[in-house]
Amino acid sequence: MKKVITLLTDFGLRDPYVGAMKGVILSICPDANIVDISHEIRKFDIRQGAYVLAASAPFFPKGTIHVGVVDPGVGTSRKAIIIETKKSFYIGPDNGLLTLAALREGVKKVVQITNSKYMLPRVSRTFHGRDIFAPAAAYLANGVPIENFGPLLEEYEILSFSKPHVRKDQIEGEIIYVDGFGNIVTNIYSEILEKVGISEEDKIKVLLNDKLGKVLKICKAYNEVKKGEFLAIIGSGNFLEISINQGNAAKKLNVKEGAKIKIKLT
Amino acid sequence: MKKVITLLTDFGLRDPYVGAMKGVILSICPDANIVDISHEIRKFDIRQGAYVLAASAPFFPKGTIHVGVVDPGVGTSRKAIIIETKKSFYIGPDNGLLTLAALREGVKKVVQITNSKYMLPRVSRTFHGRDIFAPAAAYLANGVPIENFGPLLEEYEILSFSKPHVRKDQIEGEIIYVDGFGNIVTNIYSEILEKVGISEEDKIKVLLNDKLGKVLKICKAYNEVKKGEFLAIIGSGNFLEISINQGNAAKKLNVKEGAKIKIKLT
Amino acid sequence: MKKVITLLTDFGLRDPYVGAMKGVILSICPDANIVDISHEIRKFDIRQGAYVLAASAPFFPKGTIHVGVVDPGVGTSRKAIIIETKKSFYIGPDNGLLTLAALREGVKKVVQITNSKYMLPRVSRTFHGRDIFAPAAAYLANGVPIENFGPLLEEYEILSFSKPHVRKDQIEGEIIYVDGFGNIVTNIYSEILEKVGISEEDKIKVLLNDKLGKVLKICKAYNEVKKGEFLAIIGSGNFLEISINQGNAAKKLNVKEGAKIKIKLT
Repeated sequence: MKKVITLLTDFGLRDPYVGAMKGVILSICPDANIVDISHEIRKFDIRQGAYVLAASAPFFPKGTIHVGVVDPGVGTSRKAIIIETKKSFYIGPDNGLLTLAALREGVKKVVQITNSKYMLPRVSRTFHGRDIFAPAAAYLANGVPIENFGPLLEEYEILSFSKPHVRKDQIEGEIIYVDGFGNIVTNIYSEILEKVGISEEDKIKVLLNDKLGKVLKICKAYNEVKKGEFLAIIGSGNFLEISINQGNAAKKLNVKEGAKIKIKLT
Repeated sequence: MKKVITLLTDFGLRDPYVGAMKGVILSICPDANIVDISHEIRKFDIRQGAYVLAASAPFFPKGTIHVGVVDPGVGTSRKAIIIETKKSFYIGPDNGLLTLAALREGVKKVVQITNSKYMLPRVSRTFHGRDIFAPAAAYLANGVPIENFGPLLEEYEILSFSKPHVRKDQIEGEIIYVDGFGNIVTNIYSEILEKVGISEEDKIKVLLNDKLGKVLKICKAYNEVKKGEFLAIIGSGNFLEISINQGNAAKKLNVKEGAKIKIKLT
Repeated sequence: MKKVITLLTDFGLRDPYVGAMKGVILSICPDANIVDISHEIRKFDIRQGAYVLAASAPFFPKGTIHVGVVDPGVGTSRKAIIIETKKSFYIGPDNGLLTLAALREGVKKVVQITNSKYMLPRVSRTFHGRDIFAPAAAYLANGVPIENFGPLLEEYEILSFSKPHVRKDQIEGEIIYVDGFGNIVTNIYSEILEKVGISEEDKIKVLLNDKLGKVLKICKAYNEVKKGEFLAIIGSGNFLEISINQGNAAKKLNVKEGAKIKIKLT
């Protein structure tokens, strides 16, 4: 069966960089099935890349090789790593980008890529995606054992989003992602809502950076409120989201990732 | 032979949504050949999605499975459907998105997707692309008969663009698409021009929302007029288009989809 | 082994055009492995397209078929061509788009596509990507000999970037690309720096359109300077680049492709 290799970068889609990575992979592993997760991660935004990777990786087949490149430290002493989990492989810089997704699957081992046999002959200062990560993915897909790439690592960068806190009848959380629709994704997962006794159809008071002092219904569909109106909803990642039916909630509220949110049952 | 599954959505390319759909498809049908038609459909714009799907679907091989997700009604009672035509399959919400393309191929049957066996175990409120449409496409590619997905539907949403009208020596039509070059695509197909006695090389008077009161030549190439000048041309979809040679006609005229156009022979 | 067919266009990703090309290819050659290099080339910008193609093509496997469509002259007498090099094939308009990449690989022969047997039955005025170039790529992938497509061409459009000049202790060059990070790529390749006695770790005085009269260190990594500060670096294409660590140098300096640059050792 063809190996699936996914790519997630902040390279955008105009430049030659994504194409070059794909060319490198196919030159080494002609049978690879390359799948783009996203190349539109905000430049240098490791947290955004980690979120998008963690939100899509669970849906890929066992054995998938995920390559992530959001790499402001390229060329410095930051390590290049391969993480093997119980389900997949993650390849990229050791800056936390990969760990949000990898830790959820259970990390088996982490290897530092040091063996130049599995890199391009000439490694540039600025583009390890092409020169180190893409070849590593292709050789791994070809069956090269993970140990051959370099030494085992005991320590590596962990990135995690803050957990929501329950204070009395109130949940305090954080905005972890704003999607292209303007949906505001919080770190408040559905199970914690139950703890506080909040369930679907309930109405909650929402404070976003102390801005939106609104009471919103937790809806089962965007269309439960009129077009242009705010609502709360359990989104596809199982987190509480604040949205506008057919509108852009984040733009309307000028809310960005990292903003604070407080909710309580009315 | 590998089954081709195409994707058309309004998800954009940053978010984890397209990647998640591809992961779901490959988890169920590892051999699927997934092809992106577009993920940059204007958010919630079913008509634009229908146009883009109908303009590209005819060029795909027989048996292709097209998945379309522009789905403002997700989570409501709008149905999830599979349309089988004489050439292809179309999977998505029952909101008209699929019918412009499907009707041209001749609809054989339409089935409502109700069998949860062919959905993800947990269906979210907000992302049926991942939880219902992607799995349906993958199972269909695996050979599951269309009847297994649910009951036959007699009625489903039809979307169509208005037809151009001939009044005396004048044709009145509508803008059905503005492309990334700013080419203004009308619903005036080449055959109707012949009826009124207009043919290539002729000059026509064009009124766009009563704005452009210009006489334009129907050119055989953009380059027949100088850079920056307006022209008319029979475009690649066999419709009359208004363009600027190496410029953006839609921006210059501030014309949007849905605008009215009147043309007559000068 | 599956034939790799790459696509590079200025079509953008919303319109039906890229999807239609892929459909045409898969209809003729179901086994093709289609890889997107870029569809976000600036509209009509042949030079930008040529740069991106030349920067990514070297990394693809031998035998790859590259299709390039930046084609302001579509529908005119400009020719449709196939270039066979020692490594790959290039298909597109005869306007220079393909030659920057092709010449580096050593051109073996150039053929004009005239045989309508290998085109779509109906060739439009405006979309030869779909009607001529995509079918040619697919038939070539199927094994049709290049001679069957049409007559050999002795002359074809050559596009090249100006070479940097060394004047006394100063190198005068040109900006050939600005990438999505705002990195300013010059035509000053690393070997010419050595000639003037400039090497990594040195400091150089940089004049960009006589604007940036700054002394910059040639760094080994972006991170060698503080976030937001300018630096010089040998980029992934082996050219001197001017950058800002985690910032957008081109935006800050308002520098565009084609601008002049002068550097000298301080």
